Amino acid sequence: MMSGIVTTGFLDTVRQDEIEREIGGLLEARALRAAAYGDRFAELWSIALGCVLGGKLLRPRLLLGAFDALAPTTGQDAVAREAALRIAAGVELLHYSFLLHDDVIDGDLLRRGRPNLIGTVLRERDPAAFESQARRDGDASPADLHWASTSGILMGDLLLSAAHQVFAREALPEPIRLRLLQLLDHTITESVAGEHLDVALSDGVVSSDLDTVLRMSRFKTATYTFELPLQAAAILAGAAPSTEDAIGAIGRHLGVAFQLQDDLLSTFGCAAEHGKDAFSDLREGKETAIIAYARMTSAWAGIEPVFGDPRLSEESGASVRALLVECGAEGFIRSLIEEQLRASSELISSPGSGVPGALAGFFADVAEAIEERRL
Amino acid sequence: MMSGIVTTGFLDTVRQDEIEREIGGLLEARALRAAAYGDRFAELWSIALGCVLGGKLLRPRLLLGAFDALAPTTGQDAVAREAALRIAAGVELLHYSFLLHDDVIDGDLLRRGRPNLIGTVLRERDPAAFESQARRDGDASPADLHWASTSGILMGDLLLSAAHQVFAREALPEPIRLRLLQLLDHTITESVAGEHLDVALSDGVVSSDLDTVLRMSRFKTATYTFELPLQAAAILAGAAPSTEDAIGAIGRHLGVAFQLQDDLLSTFGCAAEHGKDAFSDLREGKETAIIAYARMTSAWAGIEPVFGDPRLSEESGASVRALLVECGAEGFIRSLIEEQLRASSELISSPGSGVPGALAGFFADVAEAIEERRL
Repeated sequence: MMSGIVTTGFLDTVRQDEIEREIGGLLEARALRAAAYGDRFAELWSIALGCVLGGKLLRPRLLLGAFDALAPTTGQDAVAREAALRIAAGVELLHYSFLLHDDVIDGDLLRRGRPNLIGTVLRERDPAAFESQARRDGDASPADLHWASTSGILMGDLLLSAAHQVFAREALPEPIRLRLLQLLDHTITESVAGEHLDVALSDGVVSSDLDTVLRMSRFKTATYTFELPLQAAAILAGAAPSTEDAIGAIGRHLGVAFQLQDDLLSTFGCAAEHGKDAFSDLREGKETAIIAYARMTSAWAGIEPVFGDPRLSEESGASVRALLVECGAEGFIRSLIEEQLRASSELISSPGSGVPGALAGFFADVAEAIEERRL
Repeated sequence: MMSGIVTTGFLDTVRQDEIEREIGGLLEARALRAAAYGDRFAELWSIALGCVLGGKLLRPRLLLGAFDALAPTTGQDAVAREAALRIAAGVELLHYSFLLHDDVIDGDLLRRGRPNLIGTVLRERDPAAFESQARRDGDASPADLHWASTSGILMGDLLLSAAHQVFAREALPEPIRLRLLQLLDHTITESVAGEHLDVALSDGVVSSDLDTVLRMSRFKTATYTFELPLQAAAILAGAAPSTEDAIGAIGRHLGVAFQLQDDLLSTFGCAAEHGKDAFSDLREGKETAIIAYARMTSAWAGIEPVFGDPRLSEESGASVRALLVECGAEGFIRSLIEEQLRASSELISSPGSGVPGALAGFFADVAEAIEERRL
């Protein structure tokens, strides 16, 4: 889509390198201070460093990409870009703190097929127990499991605090600094509200319907993954308030499209290609929009008995997939994604949005990457 | 002790009222915004409000008491006091976020005999299950327990974030703001390191010895309970750096004395008087300095078999208590408390400390309250 617009190299490797250096610098300084509190605490920081740097860095790349597209139009200098780079690193620390507490809450030891921080801590205690536990038929000792999940809670707290410190300490003009802090505050409230609703759905505290599930995934993921970095870029680049608002709204649409595409990928994607367990969402009984749609169809009678079964076989998984396609759930989600991408595209090209050409090109890049499942 | 010095009304009720109003205002604003995310999320905030305001507010009272004792000597005005009041409220939010994650990690549903936030959430789901679960022979459903502990993790994250926002947004001169943020950062690192070490001890990852246990309880509690509020008061009042350092060091000694006194109270105190379960530390197998001392004596052979037994009877509990007295553990801890109070008193009266008379009086008040177990 929008292939006529010049793209800005959203996925270029140079940007990835500088973000990694920045995050590495932030975490290494903390790891160094941690050493004063004993070997175990230092070890926890060193595991965290490895986990955070192993990510795709989507959020900081969004922030820096949008900043670089905007900055020439607002006349920002190298000092402002240094600030943008640090805030981008802060956003990644926030992301990882959310992931960690999410993993504690879900009891997950793996992320994209590799041990997460909790899994790594458990593996250090007892490699065999980690292997069995990761297969969900575990025999790890309660103390080792407790130690691993506690490490996840505490490192999540440390990274959440570190993210705030990055936002709070940046030497920015007062109004910019306060605007960023307000955005961070709003983002955290909304993301935690989304996580709370997600758990309310899976623990049966709130009953599932399509509207609730769509709200949940927007709050839980879209806001901090797209709105936060894009709006932060607008603030840091000194965009006009109306442009900042438009960029936030565009981010919301792109974020929902990204999340829905991620749901499709988890349910229908090829495990070998993207490193996700093909049936993990079904095994966990995850309340995605796909499932919420299927609940409203006659196909649900065939899905419900195995939905959330941790021992779901490959065959049952494949037949649930087929039912989800047949009942129209897959097609419906695809149409929602198209709708969100269209809405973002309309906002971008609307004369009132104030989105300059280079940023429009950057957004086109991002939308294409979402469509082609490259994010 | 030091009864010749005029005291400053550390425990006066006016100060308690204004702190409660400030915290209430901060949390109500957040609860209002939470309502946009549905009934359950609004309910979680309303439970949090009740829990936070039910506390003793020791930390904000320390901050404000020290500020009020210092401010006349440094010429601070009413605007600076407003800032101190807000930072004091922020310190209490930090405290409650630590308590919440601590309760999640320990699986506690009660605090000082009343349901904590996690217990309250569980009780809303299933009152009978809460009652049985609080007695540790529970039959709550895994989903309800998961929902309650998840609520604790997420509200802890929200309060940790809110505490940072209070520190970050205060309109203070840049060097003061940065100094406070640095103090907050240091405090959180040290407190989380202490909690990490506490769990390492109880999960058997690190073996227990007196030195390790003393370091753990200083990091975990003394730093954020005394050093943080007292040093923040010094920074906000514009004390000289050497006075700020001296006040921090005094806070460290008072904090360790407070924590050791609290350990004594939990093990030997009268349950009816202070609302703590008389044997909960013994039942939980909590690694206190009392226990670490007892481990080095021949009495340990009689204590070890029942230490950490969740069903410890009143009789066994009483006989463990007697052993802890006989082996000298109680006396040893008392001598450590005296040592810490003496060290703080020496620092206060040292000519180089720069502690003015009113603040010395305030510290005498605090030390007396620790000695008399009124904190």
